[in-house]
Amino acid sequence: MRSSLECLPCLVRQAMEAASRAARDEAETEALLRKIMKRLSRMDFGEPPPVVARDIHRLIRSATGVDDPYGPEKARFNAMALELLPSFEKTIASSPDPFAAALRLAVAGNVIDLGAKGDLTEREAFDSVAHAMEEPLEGDLEGFRASALTAKKILYLADNAGEIVFDRPLLGALPPGRVTVAVRGGPVINDAVMADAGAAGIPGIVPVIDNGSDAPGTILRDCGASFRKTFRSADCIIAKGQGNYETLCDEDAPLWFLFKVKCVTVAGHCGMEIGAHAVISRQAAGK
Amino acid sequence: MRSSLECLPCLVRQAMEAASRAARDEAETEALLRKIMKRLSRMDFGEPPPVVARDIHRLIRSATGVDDPYGPEKARFNAMALELLPSFEKTIASSPDPFAAALRLAVAGNVIDLGAKGDLTEREAFDSVAHAMEEPLEGDLEGFRASALTAKKILYLADNAGEIVFDRPLLGALPPGRVTVAVRGGPVINDAVMADAGAAGIPGIVPVIDNGSDAPGTILRDCGASFRKTFRSADCIIAKGQGNYETLCDEDAPLWFLFKVKCVTVAGHCGMEIGAHAVISRQAAGK
Repeated sequence: MRSSLECLPCLVRQAMEAASRAARDEAETEALLRKIMKRLSRMDFGEPPPVVARDIHRLIRSATGVDDPYGPEKARFNAMALELLPSFEKTIASSPDPFAAALRLAVAGNVIDLGAKGDLTEREAFDSVAHAMEEPLEGDLEGFRASALTAKKILYLADNAGEIVFDRPLLGALPPGRVTVAVRGGPVINDAVMADAGAAGIPGIVPVIDNGSDAPGTILRDCGASFRKTFRSADCIIAKGQGNYETLCDEDAPLWFLFKVKCVTVAGHCGMEIGAHAVISRQAAGK
Repeated sequence: MRSSLECLPCLVRQAMEAASRAARDEAETEALLRKIMKRLSRMDFGEPPPVVARDIHRLIRSATGVDDPYGPEKARFNAMALELLPSFEKTIASSPDPFAAALRLAVAGNVIDLGAKGDLTEREAFDSVAHAMEEPLEGDLEGFRASALTAKKILYLADNAGEIVFDRPLLGALPPGRVTVAVRGGPVINDAVMADAGAAGIPGIVPVIDNGSDAPGTILRDCGASFRKTFRSADCIIAKGQGNYETLCDEDAPLWFLFKVKCVTVAGHCGMEIGAHAVISRQAAGK
């Protein structure tokens, strides 16, 4: 989908937060932000927001030499999610519909998004996840269930660190032997990379690959050839988070988007309210 | 006070909202925003935020030929405030301390700030004002009362349209014959200009002058000579709103700042929480 003018203030806030983390001092942050404002003055609004976000975060990493500004936060969110997982697993096991409960947790986990809210604390995040487990899902739960349970090759595109821990019950509820999880190919904001999948214990459940790209979304032309092959051969692609929605909603592929709606631009595109817990098929995206 | 890096996303949001109002279509808004991002890449963080805001809003007005993008909102907020004023006046008259109640209304009215929240509706604004009348004032109410009631020449720097209506009870509680109200010299965001003072009925109570400047604050070097003379001869200057605080808090003058704290930058500078209703003397500002 296209970027909107409303993306600009949000991208600037995200850049400011990432630059402050990576820079040695305020002077370096200021210099970075001047470069980023110039870059944004040439932004291509025909591209989805993760394209310019990728460039901004590359610029911050290369100028500061800090490869992973959100590394400590990612580790903290993974650890705290792992601590809380057993209690959520109990709730899911005792639920009348464990598949739907696991799906609710996977979508609720998408609240852990430091791109949308950089000052999110662990406490806020996990209170939200617990609360969100009670939230109704909007979209097509039954359509998703039917596609996922009958698929032969499922590709599961993970989104953020911490969140990826809460994908585990849903991964366990999908047909065994048919699922591959993909993470980002390099650090960007708090998006999960291979190390986060490892910390979350995903490789013990299903195979994990990386997509070869450092964008906070899935820009197929940026991704590695081997990832693209897996993407094209899957008959069910489960894409977590707004970044994956923004970059894949126009793609001709058997996609299902699972995310929490966090901004007016995506809300307007998918026709749901901010705060909605969305389960949307590619066919229904942007209709 | 200096601008902070946190001002950047806020200035971009404000620019986007003003540009969308003034531009004929999205292409014109986009072109304006590209210019504004370039201007912001050269921002002088040593200056208070209203300096760059002034330049941004000038650019929008001159590029679009729209002299007052917030004109319709200002008229609506003035009209609605006038409708509600009598009921607030009754509350103030029956209060055990009418001066303090009038002061609370004047500070509460500062919630009507389309620079801080561009999508503020009339309903939200007036619910907030009514609610805010119950809020305690933070700072030095008694110091303000003593200064204001014993001053010989009071200059009252108004802030926004709508809000200026709610300044009336406080203006009426100040020593008669000693008060002059000043408004902005030209339209910027929803700041009150001479026409708004007229709509609010201020000239029937006290004399009104304009400051000769189109900045959303009081940048003395920008203001007209006659305004500067009034400013320098006053022995009590009552400055409404964050913009006036940001531009005058370092000025050597007998200033009192009345405003609602709306952002982390001002909260950090004045040592109060976001949401606080502040009554701060120049001596206490930024301490």
